[in-house]
Amino acid sequence: MHEFEIIKKYFSLLSARNKASLNLNDDVFFDKTKKLVVSVDTYIEGVHFINFKKPNLVIKKILRSSISDLICKGVNPKYYFVSGAGNKNSFSKVNLQKISNSLKQEQKKYKINLCGGDTVFSNKCSFTIVSIGFSKKIIYRNKAKLNDDVYVTGNLGDSFVGLKVLKNQFKLNKRLRDYFIKKYFLPELHLKFTNRLLNFANTSIDISDGLIADLEKLINQQKLNYTLYLENIPISNNLNGLIKSRRLKKISCVSKGDDYQILFTASPSKFRIINNTAKSLGIKVSKIGKISKQSDKSQIIDKKGNKIATNVKGYYHKF
Amino acid sequence: MHEFEIIKKYFSLLSARNKASLNLNDDVFFDKTKKLVVSVDTYIEGVHFINFKKPNLVIKKILRSSISDLICKGVNPKYYFVSGAGNKNSFSKVNLQKISNSLKQEQKKYKINLCGGDTVFSNKCSFTIVSIGFSKKIIYRNKAKLNDDVYVTGNLGDSFVGLKVLKNQFKLNKRLRDYFIKKYFLPELHLKFTNRLLNFANTSIDISDGLIADLEKLINQQKLNYTLYLENIPISNNLNGLIKSRRLKKISCVSKGDDYQILFTASPSKFRIINNTAKSLGIKVSKIGKISKQSDKSQIIDKKGNKIATNVKGYYHKF
Repeated sequence: MHEFEIIKKYFSLLSARNKASLNLNDDVFFDKTKKLVVSVDTYIEGVHFINFKKPNLVIKKILRSSISDLICKGVNPKYYFVSGAGNKNSFSKVNLQKISNSLKQEQKKYKINLCGGDTVFSNKCSFTIVSIGFSKKIIYRNKAKLNDDVYVTGNLGDSFVGLKVLKNQFKLNKRLRDYFIKKYFLPELHLKFTNRLLNFANTSIDISDGLIADLEKLINQQKLNYTLYLENIPISNNLNGLIKSRRLKKISCVSKGDDYQILFTASPSKFRIINNTAKSLGIKVSKIGKISKQSDKSQIIDKKGNKIATNVKGYYHKF
Repeated sequence: MHEFEIIKKYFSLLSARNKASLNLNDDVFFDKTKKLVVSVDTYIEGVHFINFKKPNLVIKKILRSSISDLICKGVNPKYYFVSGAGNKNSFSKVNLQKISNSLKQEQKKYKINLCGGDTVFSNKCSFTIVSIGFSKKIIYRNKAKLNDDVYVTGNLGDSFVGLKVLKNQFKLNKRLRDYFIKKYFLPELHLKFTNRLLNFANTSIDISDGLIADLEKLINQQKLNYTLYLENIPISNNLNGLIKSRRLKKISCVSKGDDYQILFTASPSKFRIINNTAKSLGIKVSKIGKISKQSDKSQIIDKKGNKIATNVKGYYHKF
């Protein structure tokens, strides 16, 4: 059973009287009166991270994945909680020191503070991260407008290649190995960009499950569709080289998730302010498509103007 | 390595600049400016609950265990998040319906609202519950005063027997079986009592790890000790009967945890208001001991005035 069906069928009802839950149809909870924004995510060994052999990198990655939920919505994360489950090996003194050091670095980088959590024994290693921020406003899902442009920050797809490398499904030279693995573990979040987003974005999401999957979530309760221009979807030179040499499909590489870039839509009139903001902050922002009416089917167009197959759905949790 | 040592050695530093974390030495986080109280707890199959064969009861128990952290500190819980990890069996349609129904009942009973969470795939079933409340004040740990009386709500020990029965370590007749199992799964939290607590309690904690363990946590950074009067520690008639017929040690039965009663200290001058409050709300509150100076060793005194052995430490997480 699909994650969204579960929420709709069994849990939406429980939050019906409570507007702040956003009908459980967003990655965050927002209490407008209290100006409180909360995100809760669980990461399991073997599902969300391969193993816990590199605790310093794993802990950074999952913390970034959690605060990314706030950053993509125009909210500065302020507090975080870590609830970790593991055994003697996962929480050895060496590993605890690595976790502590990593958290310290992330705190400085993203201006956040550890506030609590839990440590419990389990043979299987897992973490739940709670991120909290305070804001008068957030950018919601499902607020795209007809004819909005679709934008994305940074590059997509590097993280997917990094995961493939870690799983030994791609053999690469050391330079490329290191490059893609780093992109997988340490996605760059655009903290400086977050407050600016409120000036122009109609709706936003972070790309965790893949470009297509997350774009569909972004507009999932709206009578709208999208057109994406494959050529405009930003990828790194390293990934471009790999796509050519290995004959990979670009659309497939950018649809696998773990990118933690910000996907947002904005009115065409905002093009200039978005461009200027991006330039002044030194952040790459690409216009990759348009929001269209429901009667126009969603489509991805290649550089010759041909539609390409869109059976790429990203990562969904199923039970 | 002991849970508290881990926090002290590796994580306190990360929260040093952040008063709201309460030095990670409490079960909650409290941001006084934002009036925000947060509790985060993880529950693992095989550790915190035996298995997930009774999802309706397990989910109620862990939710109560989580909001109990707020209720024992004078704070009404308002929101909760559930992040559940499990497989197809744990999250079958039948189980999801049971979970949903249970949450609905708990929401009504404790006036709380589901706000979000996560559902992830894992072979091992686990839950993290986040509880949030808003309050100008909370009752902290480590604020006991010399000569304070020690109080506890309700009865202790029933839950421990319930767990023994579930593990087939105690054979009882059906009536007693049902009684103790219910006490294990459905601890009664004293929501009505929580706001009143602020009027008289100097310091408080909920009993999750056992009377002695939690009393020691309550005063762990203070130069204080305690005297408890065994005779005054409240137990049910059913447990009293069992202790007599099976020759169990009372101190052992009441020190095993999972009671979720409120343990607090108050000035002797508050005796009357505490008694009146308890009576008017129909809540059992027992005075069970005193806070003494550090030079007096902590002790438990039986009805003959003899000291009894105190090698009962309750439940600690170790790695």
